[in-house]
Amino acid sequence: MEQLPNFLNQRAFLTPNRLALVFDNQRWSFMEMYRTVETLAQKIATLGIQAKDSVAILLTNRPHTVFIIHALQQLGVSAVFLNHRLTAKEMVFQLKDSGTRLLISEDAFKEKMNGIKGLFHELPMTTIVEIDHLETKKVPLVNEFVLDEVCSIMYTSGTTGNPKGVLQSYGNHWWSAVGSALNLGLTEKDGWLCAVPLFHISGLSILMRSVIYGMPVYLYEEFNEKTINQVLQAGEVTIMSVVSTMLIRMIDDLGDKRYHSNFRCMLLGGGPAPKPLLDACLEKNIPVFQSYGMTETSSQIVTLAPEDSIVKLGSAGKPLFPSQLKIMNNQMQLLPNQPGEIVVKGPNVTKGYLNRDEANKKNFKDGWFYTGDIGYVDEDGYLFVMDRRSDLIISGGENIYPAEIEEVLLSHSSVKEAGVVGIEHTQWGQVPYAFVVVSELVDEANLINYCKDKLAKFKIPHHIYIVNELPRNASNKLLRRKLHELMPKG
Amino acid sequence: MEQLPNFLNQRAFLTPNRLALVFDNQRWSFMEMYRTVETLAQKIATLGIQAKDSVAILLTNRPHTVFIIHALQQLGVSAVFLNHRLTAKEMVFQLKDSGTRLLISEDAFKEKMNGIKGLFHELPMTTIVEIDHLETKKVPLVNEFVLDEVCSIMYTSGTTGNPKGVLQSYGNHWWSAVGSALNLGLTEKDGWLCAVPLFHISGLSILMRSVIYGMPVYLYEEFNEKTINQVLQAGEVTIMSVVSTMLIRMIDDLGDKRYHSNFRCMLLGGGPAPKPLLDACLEKNIPVFQSYGMTETSSQIVTLAPEDSIVKLGSAGKPLFPSQLKIMNNQMQLLPNQPGEIVVKGPNVTKGYLNRDEANKKNFKDGWFYTGDIGYVDEDGYLFVMDRRSDLIISGGENIYPAEIEEVLLSHSSVKEAGVVGIEHTQWGQVPYAFVVVSELVDEANLINYCKDKLAKFKIPHHIYIVNELPRNASNKLLRRKLHELMPKG
Repeated sequence: MEQLPNFLNQRAFLTPNRLALVFDNQRWSFMEMYRTVETLAQKIATLGIQAKDSVAILLTNRPHTVFIIHALQQLGVSAVFLNHRLTAKEMVFQLKDSGTRLLISEDAFKEKMNGIKGLFHELPMTTIVEIDHLETKKVPLVNEFVLDEVCSIMYTSGTTGNPKGVLQSYGNHWWSAVGSALNLGLTEKDGWLCAVPLFHISGLSILMRSVIYGMPVYLYEEFNEKTINQVLQAGEVTIMSVVSTMLIRMIDDLGDKRYHSNFRCMLLGGGPAPKPLLDACLEKNIPVFQSYGMTETSSQIVTLAPEDSIVKLGSAGKPLFPSQLKIMNNQMQLLPNQPGEIVVKGPNVTKGYLNRDEANKKNFKDGWFYTGDIGYVDEDGYLFVMDRRSDLIISGGENIYPAEIEEVLLSHSSVKEAGVVGIEHTQWGQVPYAFVVVSELVDEANLINYCKDKLAKFKIPHHIYIVNELPRNASNKLLRRKLHELMPKG
Repeated sequence: MEQLPNFLNQRAFLTPNRLALVFDNQRWSFMEMYRTVETLAQKIATLGIQAKDSVAILLTNRPHTVFIIHALQQLGVSAVFLNHRLTAKEMVFQLKDSGTRLLISEDAFKEKMNGIKGLFHELPMTTIVEIDHLETKKVPLVNEFVLDEVCSIMYTSGTTGNPKGVLQSYGNHWWSAVGSALNLGLTEKDGWLCAVPLFHISGLSILMRSVIYGMPVYLYEEFNEKTINQVLQAGEVTIMSVVSTMLIRMIDDLGDKRYHSNFRCMLLGGGPAPKPLLDACLEKNIPVFQSYGMTETSSQIVTLAPEDSIVKLGSAGKPLFPSQLKIMNNQMQLLPNQPGEIVVKGPNVTKGYLNRDEANKKNFKDGWFYTGDIGYVDEDGYLFVMDRRSDLIISGGENIYPAEIEEVLLSHSSVKEAGVVGIEHTQWGQVPYAFVVVSELVDEANLINYCKDKLAKFKIPHHIYIVNELPRNASNKLLRRKLHELMPKG
């Protein structure tokens, strides 16, 4: 099996009049969406963009972003998804690494575009308004999606070094959508609410499911618990993707009200839900499906059904049907209840990172992907995730890698050693705290300021403590998990 | 994407307690089914059967057949599905052609087994009772299904020559199940009634969907409209596969009663439904999904939703999402409303016939399968099937190929020419009638008798007319469609 019909094209052919997209009071059918996308693709083609080129997008959660994403697929182009919370410098790394030939952005990000231009002036840039003014060029659009070809590239960081571009193929997206449907079911009534960023796999995967299932996406530019709660009471939306931070705010706002009985799945990513949150959902009849996944697995790969959420408290569930998992340590598969590295396999798992031979060799073995995350499975096969890889900090659904922040701090002339760890936070789940050993006197404000043009805002440590030494093991490896013991009491 | 987890094994792991199979008053969960199947596989292994061997089954629609089918999959064996209505001679052809190493049957077919033994005494045979008495042998069962490997072989005839073994891979079955779910949807409540033969793709595909979806099969040994109507009124069954003959009998019996509101899909194969049947279904709120498919497409590849059944009267619908179709004539793709050969493509389509290089070369080009059926698509892309390939006769859901009957008639010493055609029949939809030119006087009873040990009962012509000449075109090709004009009037 090497190719499938072009997803949007086939969908518009099979069910032209079905609802595809809802934003504010605007609605598009699949045929209307296809026509818009086709024109957009023919305009982008006038910029000399061809199949297999990489084109980056820096766009908000609005309909034009959906159309641009599909237009790039019609041209056979790989889309590089820029997180708009990154600094210009961080973006330029990704643009260069991915060999991007064009950046498509919008007026909302004018300042960020200027920042990028300052650092990477050769890169052609355009905006959605400029594209709209272009003529069209009759070019052949993609007839079939080759499942092995790269559809999207999203950057993710690891233990050390620069962020890595995860290659997500058409096949990865297809299988992710199919695995999810086999688990959650699929009905004509379904509509999926997307208030998570389209530049994350959590958002993009909703768009892909939409065309594969023939299901509308209810798109929101911003997450606002009051608006969303009203929508979930109305009955058009049946599924929503959230992270804990969002769900906590929704439940606080919901009060005595209840969601419509059509609402059948709150798909919760970004780590297991705390017990009080689950209890509140149970009390309010909210069907929470906890899940485990990452950019490399093209969204969820392990999901826990609501009926198991209390008996298997803290578990992320079992794999989707096409996927498998095992727990490894020193090249040995571990028995139930023994913690080790979580290793996964499945057609939704990326074939590898762009230009990262070493990381690919390290993380992919015999068709299995070594996640770097630590966990165990119980005797019934339910996964319990203990530590996200490389002491990953998840803050409001965003992944933060301690190593990336440490590297910035270490580049400051006064910093000799640095360690970063996630500390519990009521609103965001976790936020980064830093601990540094310095060679000369420097104050916290100075260090935080130093981070500001180098790191996205959500990555900047909430506190930077100056300490005498960092906890290390015998081989001098930093023990990040012990860092919190250095915090001043009280 | 080359392999997936062993379907039954993964299903039993993911949802061990879900209902898998219902027969009479017996019920099996997926875990219970897996344990039974595992033991069976370990017993069959003692007979020296290994991965990649072909094993034929001649079995009724009973639970042990389901278990045997899955047990063969656990061993990596290709199963050859024998239609038990065939004669011993017809079966022996298939057994030899497929290189079958073992025939598994049951006491109900003792006579047939003796017939086979008489013609092919080297073939090892066993029965399910004998297998039950075997010891078990600890053998490694298949861990992953390689999607390209042959899961099942079913024989189908063509225009001329011997029946051909259609190679159905694990991937074919997988994609067929996924394409169907994306079209019909999938809910926790679903249960599929199987009163069609398990040795047909219509029956086997229900078993495959069951393990892939985690959905129970309600299995029936015989089709009885009264029993089935009661079951569909009870609410446990949501989907049923039928051919027109069955549906007509069900509607006659139903009277003023209605099916349970849970019942959501009557999947109708074997040609478009006649208008009066559709009207009756409409009046009785029966959601009929007409469909087009064949052994080579591992069940339906084109399906018509109930909401379109009246506006698109007589259409078989649009392709399933992973599949495509086009209409060809003389290597040119035809425009809408122009009739030509129906050509299909998709991951549910067989890679080819066993040992039939020539047929494979003729029927498979550039990844497309030339069905031999004639039809057109309208301007909206809906398929209308005009003639099943090679004047295929569909009688009570069984395919009958005129050429096969003609060949038998021609082997009779008095028959010079023979032509067979399907004639409308109230109960069976169609039945075969034959027309022969003879060299010496012979009576109809003699000819019919001559067919009896050579052809399955349903293939024996209801009438054989002796005529002076057969209708032929300029190049002397038999015009089967004109045969009915030779029928005596009144």
